[in-house]
Amino acid sequence: MGASKIQVGKIQIGMIGLGTVGSGVVQLLEKNRDLIRRRLGADIQIKKIAVAQTQKKRSLKIASSLLTDKVEEVLNDPEISMVVELMGGIDPAKRYLLQAIEKGKHIVTANKAVLAHHGAELFSAAEKKKVGLGFEASVCGGIPILRALREGLVADQVTSLYGIVNGTSNYILTEMTSEGSSFEEVLKKAQEKGYAEADPRFDVNGIDSVHKLVLLLRLAFGVQVDVESIYTEGIGRVGPLDVKFAEELGYRIKLLAIAKLEGDSMEARVHPTMLPKETLLATVDGVFNAVYLLGEYSGPGLYFGSGAGGMPTATAVVSDVVDIAKNILSGIGVRGSERMVPSKKIKPIEEVQCSHYLRFMAVDQPGVLAKIAGFLGEEGIGIASVIQKGRKLQQSVPVVIMTYEAKGRAVERALAKVDQLPVVTEKSLAIRIETDLG
Amino acid sequence: MGASKIQVGKIQIGMIGLGTVGSGVVQLLEKNRDLIRRRLGADIQIKKIAVAQTQKKRSLKIASSLLTDKVEEVLNDPEISMVVELMGGIDPAKRYLLQAIEKGKHIVTANKAVLAHHGAELFSAAEKKKVGLGFEASVCGGIPILRALREGLVADQVTSLYGIVNGTSNYILTEMTSEGSSFEEVLKKAQEKGYAEADPRFDVNGIDSVHKLVLLLRLAFGVQVDVESIYTEGIGRVGPLDVKFAEELGYRIKLLAIAKLEGDSMEARVHPTMLPKETLLATVDGVFNAVYLLGEYSGPGLYFGSGAGGMPTATAVVSDVVDIAKNILSGIGVRGSERMVPSKKIKPIEEVQCSHYLRFMAVDQPGVLAKIAGFLGEEGIGIASVIQKGRKLQQSVPVVIMTYEAKGRAVERALAKVDQLPVVTEKSLAIRIETDLG
Repeated sequence: MGASKIQVGKIQIGMIGLGTVGSGVVQLLEKNRDLIRRRLGADIQIKKIAVAQTQKKRSLKIASSLLTDKVEEVLNDPEISMVVELMGGIDPAKRYLLQAIEKGKHIVTANKAVLAHHGAELFSAAEKKKVGLGFEASVCGGIPILRALREGLVADQVTSLYGIVNGTSNYILTEMTSEGSSFEEVLKKAQEKGYAEADPRFDVNGIDSVHKLVLLLRLAFGVQVDVESIYTEGIGRVGPLDVKFAEELGYRIKLLAIAKLEGDSMEARVHPTMLPKETLLATVDGVFNAVYLLGEYSGPGLYFGSGAGGMPTATAVVSDVVDIAKNILSGIGVRGSERMVPSKKIKPIEEVQCSHYLRFMAVDQPGVLAKIAGFLGEEGIGIASVIQKGRKLQQSVPVVIMTYEAKGRAVERALAKVDQLPVVTEKSLAIRIETDLG
Repeated sequence: MGASKIQVGKIQIGMIGLGTVGSGVVQLLEKNRDLIRRRLGADIQIKKIAVAQTQKKRSLKIASSLLTDKVEEVLNDPEISMVVELMGGIDPAKRYLLQAIEKGKHIVTANKAVLAHHGAELFSAAEKKKVGLGFEASVCGGIPILRALREGLVADQVTSLYGIVNGTSNYILTEMTSEGSSFEEVLKKAQEKGYAEADPRFDVNGIDSVHKLVLLLRLAFGVQVDVESIYTEGIGRVGPLDVKFAEELGYRIKLLAIAKLEGDSMEARVHPTMLPKETLLATVDGVFNAVYLLGEYSGPGLYFGSGAGGMPTATAVVSDVVDIAKNILSGIGVRGSERMVPSKKIKPIEEVQCSHYLRFMAVDQPGVLAKIAGFLGEEGIGIASVIQKGRKLQQSVPVVIMTYEAKGRAVERALAKVDQLPVVTEKSLAIRIETDLG
């Protein structure tokens, strides 16, 4: 950027963890040094990185003098004013974070698990010590959704929010839709492509999504919620058949994290959801993430981008580092801090009203549909439409019923009765439908 | 929010202008007082509002003691630390803004015109006096796109950006697409619905969009650009025929503000653009706004929401007020300020390479297509496909040609030659095509 020598300050940071995101941060700070200097008016310098094995072979070129296998060298260094935690997991990450805070160091983390489970403790520790705690990277990697909620929408109450916050699940559902493949086939392909972990459980069973939902709820509604109190259902039971029926009926299936404010209570849930095909969120395909929200006065908003990956997530990490660096350079610890509201009751999933897609597998013989419809009627569930086709007498065929709005409890009960029928050949499936997405 | 009496500070602001957005701000501060107090830890109090006529009948309930027709009462009040300018236009708004800055007051404005034309002077005045200058509301009302660029993407270089930043034009193009109506018919309807001003020129001729593009360029590329140096073309010449052909060819027509970084030069232009139907931006309909961008490391991003309207825009204004209030409460003026880069050369529109949609109106007689194709060939423009149908010998019919990539200059020259043909019955139309939107 030319030879002009402008005297700039320097902010020294320490890192814990040097995996995909950590390597991304190192590279980003190097590659965008001029850009960051121009925007911040100072340099961000990595002073020390704590790693499990200093001798491990890495594709990243990094001075070995930066590496240490002693976390204390990061935590105890008085020149390090900010600790970037990218090791993930709950323990010992939580301990390290608390130690760093205790020593008055600002924190930036991408660790949704530790924040979802121990947010109350960590945020309050940071507040007490007046240090910043940046966690933009923990939700939707390259999408600055937390900043949008905390700053862009600071003057407005978000009343509902629907997020595709797990790229692996979205990739799997997208491929099932476009290729007609099974969950298992697509998962294998996703793993080969690096879109799914060797152990994909947290991604596909909704755990990763519910961690992110806890953090979104904090910023959107000002509440700190227990992970365990949120209904969480993964995509494991969604089959190629369901994806095909959804298409035919004008819907797409997405794994959504959903939050709705209802006075003093709220809805918070993670589950596969059918969305009308023409809604913006339904068109978000592949590994991408997106959050659709409704603000009371700002109206609808959609934030779309890369949800994961080393470099996109690194841009979020460094955006927090720069934000905190601005405070340090201004001589302040933190700029204000939001007060939480008293926790709101989460409406039990049994009480949540939705239209449902119901898919039954039953032996094709006279009277089956009447029986199923009868059970639905007993629970007060209205039928909007029925698809039963490809008659194969005495073989198992799918019966699909779209219902009017019904409570989760009624649907659960009706399905339990249906599943008792001898002609029903596998556990019936219900997928909730959301239509209020503009 | 309950009876707990927490001692909170108070930030007193003054306003200039009380139109749609100004009234929105007054209402929002009133309705969301508790929310803002909880998030900011202080109250925002309007001390004075300068209006043209204090006695004017307003639907808004407001204490008459707040109103004044003397702007000086806002500018000279030492208790007012922040001035919110919502009068619009260039003069006297610019003068008031400079006076307020000179008196050390922070500024929040929704005035894209004054910032686009006099940004260099206004931003540098604010920097010199170390006061904040918030302008989130000036681009895409309810979408916090400026904050996303300045903070969320602070560590990344945006390399290209495509914005639907004028809701009126987007509404008109959407209605033309869905209803097949003419520009004039839809404009009338838009005016009836309040989606278009009585004088819609700035909206439909691209001026409003280019103002916003200047501000987006500032944040995305760090450059201050002259409005006049940006090629600006409105939607006035797009007809129902073009919308229909676009649909048939798999495209949608949108008025886009486009910016692309190319080393030391850049592209910056506003014009009707064809986008492949399946791209996210192409699905943004009605009065909504959206910005699609590519970050070097963060990847693609889309920000969608309400582009205008009193309340959505008010949420943006107040987000800036709160941001500046946080600085005031922290005892600092501004938190850092980005250095601009030396201005980059804008590639002349004649040099910009695009595929084009070309629509000719010519008398249907043998040899016409050959002549048109010949002129295109002379300019080195390759033809990708041709549509000519509904033969009506000796009547004027449309001939549509999709080209391969060609420079603006070549297309302009070819069209000038075609328009000389006696069989050509109206001025030919070229619409640029953008396909790099994921």
